[in-house]
Amino acid sequence: MSSASPAPGDDRIAAAMELAIDLAEQVRGRTSPNPPVGAVILDEYGALAGTGATRPPGGPHAEVMALRQAGPRARGGTAVVTLEPCNHHGRTGPCAEALLDAGVTAVHYAVADPNPQASGGADRLRACGLTVTAGVRAEQVASGPLRAWLHRVRTGRPQLTWKYAATLDGRSAAADGTSQWITGPVARERVHAERGRIDAIVVGTGTVLADDPALTARLPDGTLSATQPLRVVVGRRDIPPGARILDDSAPTVHLRTDDPHEVLAALAAEHCDVQLEGGPRLAAAFLRAGLVDRVQAYLAPVLIGAGQGAVGDLGIGTISAALRFHRESVDVLGEDILLTLVPDGPAADCQEDR
Amino acid sequence: MSSASPAPGDDRIAAAMELAIDLAEQVRGRTSPNPPVGAVILDEYGALAGTGATRPPGGPHAEVMALRQAGPRARGGTAVVTLEPCNHHGRTGPCAEALLDAGVTAVHYAVADPNPQASGGADRLRACGLTVTAGVRAEQVASGPLRAWLHRVRTGRPQLTWKYAATLDGRSAAADGTSQWITGPVARERVHAERGRIDAIVVGTGTVLADDPALTARLPDGTLSATQPLRVVVGRRDIPPGARILDDSAPTVHLRTDDPHEVLAALAAEHCDVQLEGGPRLAAAFLRAGLVDRVQAYLAPVLIGAGQGAVGDLGIGTISAALRFHRESVDVLGEDILLTLVPDGPAADCQEDR
Repeated sequence: MSSASPAPGDDRIAAAMELAIDLAEQVRGRTSPNPPVGAVILDEYGALAGTGATRPPGGPHAEVMALRQAGPRARGGTAVVTLEPCNHHGRTGPCAEALLDAGVTAVHYAVADPNPQASGGADRLRACGLTVTAGVRAEQVASGPLRAWLHRVRTGRPQLTWKYAATLDGRSAAADGTSQWITGPVARERVHAERGRIDAIVVGTGTVLADDPALTARLPDGTLSATQPLRVVVGRRDIPPGARILDDSAPTVHLRTDDPHEVLAALAAEHCDVQLEGGPRLAAAFLRAGLVDRVQAYLAPVLIGAGQGAVGDLGIGTISAALRFHRESVDVLGEDILLTLVPDGPAADCQEDR
Repeated sequence: MSSASPAPGDDRIAAAMELAIDLAEQVRGRTSPNPPVGAVILDEYGALAGTGATRPPGGPHAEVMALRQAGPRARGGTAVVTLEPCNHHGRTGPCAEALLDAGVTAVHYAVADPNPQASGGADRLRACGLTVTAGVRAEQVASGPLRAWLHRVRTGRPQLTWKYAATLDGRSAAADGTSQWITGPVARERVHAERGRIDAIVVGTGTVLADDPALTARLPDGTLSATQPLRVVVGRRDIPPGARILDDSAPTVHLRTDDPHEVLAALAAEHCDVQLEGGPRLAAAFLRAGLVDRVQAYLAPVLIGAGQGAVGDLGIGTISAALRFHRESVDVLGEDILLTLVPDGPAADCQEDR
């Protein structure tokens, strides 16, 4: 029996990356402005030695968490990470140094760090003699856990997803204003799960005044999820003092502007993944400004014939000028469906690398 | 080697029924008011001896077509048919007698004939000593090629499918009336393929005056399909003499009524499968009358923000009174999706046996 072992094969690296992606996905919505990253340490024999994911801002990065779990088993081992290990001293030390200190001999990562401040980790590791490969499951990571963060690094603004629920005839509320419920329980559970994974949720004062929403992420039993997005109210009108959005279940800010650019600029410093759940007028303002990066349309098999449209005036008078989207996915959620779409036009800058 | 052969096993019967269903599907839209039926004859050794499908009204039924192809090989063989063989003298002789005359010794069918005039075929065959089984792939046939015909037998009116195309925000035309094209080429090809399999297509005079549609079934190269539905114009206004719907590519009738019940009553004698492609007002009239048996919604990933809604006033003011549907299927057609729905409510009588 040989005492030395070959480096883990491609299959094992790929499996470790799948695990790292899962770990990253689990912390999505808790790490901004840092990226949600997952890391896996394999020992020198290729066995799983440690796993980690980015802790909330100020806490350790994924690699450090995984190295802590691996302990001395990291020596001679392999690190598999969804993002290139950072090389800068921020609130935490550089991960490249931590990997070197632990005696890891190979590093495989998915996506290169586009941040000029933090990049250079791969070069540093290579210079110290480690085997370093990039691009493992890169597309899956870039369109998955790192999507919003990459969008923000690239564009300087958060990724904005417009989420709405509507009937087949495009109504988000009946003529009397009622909208509970257009979609069924499976779709509503999905909405709450998504809320627990985003950084901020935006509505207009009109929605607050009309519907008095809590805008919290709740579990199926009605209790609050562990993670809550920042609640952002947009518009010049006051929020009524007793509004549910002002309760203590999650933080809330009021941005006294009607300009979508100003809204995103105000959120850009700390937030990567922002969801617009506003009414038709606010949605139209973001669409007209070309600031909707993604649409999540929950469509219910319901007809109502009248009521509030899902989107307000877009200034479009003829079919050839309509806003067209590309479908990323269609999900069946009970009786409802969820269409996830990205713009066909210039707002699709987040699609460049996909 | 034995000279006698056992009866075909269940697998072979099921495979023959799948073929019979395909044959029936191919003649859908060409047989009304008769049902589109497929038949397969296996010889005494279980080998395929003949296939047939219902010919246009006045022509032979499926069993007779299949027996003709099988010739003397039908003797001692097995018939597999999507519908119970008829036992009455209509424009053609009873199929039960034709099977007896041919010397078939076993008959397997999917759906019992609900028509009191024609039923009794199975009893007649059993009385003559044949092995007869019912219910093979019955649900597949009842929800497939025989669906519209069974609906008509059961309810006395044709099955009405409301087909529409709309943007995500529920618009079937822009503010200036333009609607070409909301959906993409794959969806439009599907629409034309469906038109070639239905009996009649209904629009209002408003659509004729506004859009001047041809309402023909066309192949992707623009030429006419082999089978064209009856074009039915509904409403009290005159059709302009030069309207395309009056050209000689397909027959056209003008029903001078606004009452959906009268429309379906006028079509019930000869037609089983009717598609409504009318504008929002006509669609609303059929929906309010509870006469929409199925909805086919072609939804394009497009937002327009204004324009003609897919459906007009339904007299519904609050969300709890909305019309709710059950999704039968969702098909991806290029960038578009097709949702096929049936009503949740009393209009779903065609769902009883499914």
